[in-house]
Amino acid sequence: MELREKTLKFHKENEGKIALKCKVPVRNKEDMTLAYTPGVAEPCLEIEKSLETIYDYTSKGNWVAVVTNGTAVLGLGDIGAAAGLPVMEGKAVLFKAFAGVDAFPICLETKDIDKIVETVKLMEPTFGGINLEDIKAPECFEIESKLKEISNIPIFHDDQHGTAVVSSACLINALKLVNKKFEDITIVINGAGAAGTAITKLLIKMGAKDVILCDTKGPIYKGRPAGMNKYKDEIAEVTNKKLVKGTLADALKGADVFLGVSVANCVTQEMVKSMNRDSIIMAMANPNPEIVPELALEAGAKVVCTGRSDYPNQVNNVLAFPGIFRGALDVRASDINDEMKIAAAYAIAELVSEDELKPEYVIPQAFDLRIAPKVAYYVAKAAIETGIARRENITPEMVEKHTKELLK
Amino acid sequence: MELREKTLKFHKENEGKIALKCKVPVRNKEDMTLAYTPGVAEPCLEIEKSLETIYDYTSKGNWVAVVTNGTAVLGLGDIGAAAGLPVMEGKAVLFKAFAGVDAFPICLETKDIDKIVETVKLMEPTFGGINLEDIKAPECFEIESKLKEISNIPIFHDDQHGTAVVSSACLINALKLVNKKFEDITIVINGAGAAGTAITKLLIKMGAKDVILCDTKGPIYKGRPAGMNKYKDEIAEVTNKKLVKGTLADALKGADVFLGVSVANCVTQEMVKSMNRDSIIMAMANPNPEIVPELALEAGAKVVCTGRSDYPNQVNNVLAFPGIFRGALDVRASDINDEMKIAAAYAIAELVSEDELKPEYVIPQAFDLRIAPKVAYYVAKAAIETGIARRENITPEMVEKHTKELLK
Repeated sequence: MELREKTLKFHKENEGKIALKCKVPVRNKEDMTLAYTPGVAEPCLEIEKSLETIYDYTSKGNWVAVVTNGTAVLGLGDIGAAAGLPVMEGKAVLFKAFAGVDAFPICLETKDIDKIVETVKLMEPTFGGINLEDIKAPECFEIESKLKEISNIPIFHDDQHGTAVVSSACLINALKLVNKKFEDITIVINGAGAAGTAITKLLIKMGAKDVILCDTKGPIYKGRPAGMNKYKDEIAEVTNKKLVKGTLADALKGADVFLGVSVANCVTQEMVKSMNRDSIIMAMANPNPEIVPELALEAGAKVVCTGRSDYPNQVNNVLAFPGIFRGALDVRASDINDEMKIAAAYAIAELVSEDELKPEYVIPQAFDLRIAPKVAYYVAKAAIETGIARRENITPEMVEKHTKELLK
Repeated sequence: MELREKTLKFHKENEGKIALKCKVPVRNKEDMTLAYTPGVAEPCLEIEKSLETIYDYTSKGNWVAVVTNGTAVLGLGDIGAAAGLPVMEGKAVLFKAFAGVDAFPICLETKDIDKIVETVKLMEPTFGGINLEDIKAPECFEIESKLKEISNIPIFHDDQHGTAVVSSACLINALKLVNKKFEDITIVINGAGAAGTAITKLLIKMGAKDVILCDTKGPIYKGRPAGMNKYKDEIAEVTNKKLVKGTLADALKGADVFLGVSVANCVTQEMVKSMNRDSIIMAMANPNPEIVPELALEAGAKVVCTGRSDYPNQVNNVLAFPGIFRGALDVRASDINDEMKIAAAYAIAELVSEDELKPEYVIPQAFDLRIAPKVAYYVAKAAIETGIARRENITPEMVEKHTKELLK
């Protein structure tokens, strides 16, 4: 059967992918007395007295909302909030399967930034964290930053930061292979949407000194006359200090790393050949990469990563978001900050040992069950160290153990 | 152990009451290909083409949001949205346990009617129905009616209609016992909040000709100079045609039924004695009824119902809402209309056979597993008959069978 037929049948037969699970039984009056009236009044009154006890008496601390408005769903574009629901349910399933996080899809039928911000804020009592998903750029930047400002729970736009964390993890290991350092290399990123912008910022935080972000008009630089906006102006302040102009091809000359979150086949073998020795090609456009691995390798690339599961080195967000939220939730972090993201990238990278590391294996496989516990551990540690963990009496080791137990 | 200690321990040990259940496995690449990318794109595209297929390819059709703003939680009053979460989780558990409905708590941190309406409307893609819960009157009326106008899914305020359905069921059977008819009796309802108002309206729909609704200022009548609002004005148009004035005691003189959704001990034995022969007392204030059953019976009442599980004839909403939503969801009703509510009341009443019927048993027990399937059957039938069922090829019998299977 073809994938199309198979997946439609699969969704229809199961009537979607998610359901409610009751953690407590309701078989008799006694059960009802505890789970509902009159007993339930007691935890309500405790929470009214002290808001933080909501984490003790409810499931809030393990629920994450997967929030979308359906404007940038997969590679399908703006298909609307309702049509995005299968993806959001799928995401919820991954959260649960990979890290025991209870996730719930919230598909919002609006493109109004302030309405999205307000709606998510109003729902805050129910959730321990918010995963923004498939909201198009540049709206996603404003939604995320506004929400981060007013929320007391972590806000994380996975298309930005999940992708940034996993590509960084790849790059950490690829650089080891070619014996180069973040400080010394030139990185060219193609695609100035949600992912490209976040990757740029995270790599700079991680020590990269020379990053050039390109959009459809070529390299972004300070003072570029056309196609700028406030987000690109910000980027121009911290990247492309040599003011490289022209095309992607111009930017790639002599560069060490190409990192694409853009469109199929926009990189030629000539362009790869023009790069520095031991070049690293991360061609993550889906389903068809910026350059197919065979061609990139033939043109001299040392390491090639893609977004696909049928090539080596798949850059897959599922390596990051389940463990990141697991760690953040377990220590009741009020945010997911850069330190936590960087910690997650190193956690993922370290799962490939020096002995195992080779051009075809710079990043672990999605179903490596060591990933989420290690990411959760590192993230929890970073949250505690940066002072945004609100839960006391819990150590990163306990978070790691908890995650392992959830995966059993 | 005292209930307080026990219930706090129960909530804490379980870390709340609800979790996510994945209906599909994610154990390997193949699973992920179907549940997530790239396979998930196919149902997305189908839904984009034809919105109604969202019911085929997602879980929407079985999810109900339990929405509150925490302004009238149990008998606790306005404790806030967050403090209401244990009740909403409890409600979700009851939905699942009693009718296989997947329910999710949405606690909204606002008292602004329009914001609540807008938020719920924006979330519509995710849910097959909305159960409003513990929102205070009169705001609840406007929220419900505005949402009903703009939504394509059932909107149901359980504190109003669930209570109305179950009290009506009680009354249907109690009237059989005393051989009286809706058309001929005088019903006095005390408490003009969400429940009292809805009960009044439903009983009139069911044939009651003489209903008097009382609030803290006594009987509501057309032209009453004080304590009126637009909702009470509406009520005054269709009730108390004899313009009875004064106090609750004045209204009760010669009445056949007292129905209280008010406060403890506001009905005296004298008042019961002043009623018509074979009076029916439904004293549903919680935890302490308007008059305790022993006193009411001693004063001459024939049938007494309360809201408590330690007396006979408990008026418990759990008899109604799970089956009502089950029936509405299974036929994809666009609303829950009066015909469906009345059908639910008769379904519940009919579960007490003529042989079983006696003053101490006019309504089935909460854990009678026949209830939800029968209610669902009747509700589905009424939805189909009133032309608001959107699902074809499903009969009420199939709904009943489905409900029974879910309860296994």
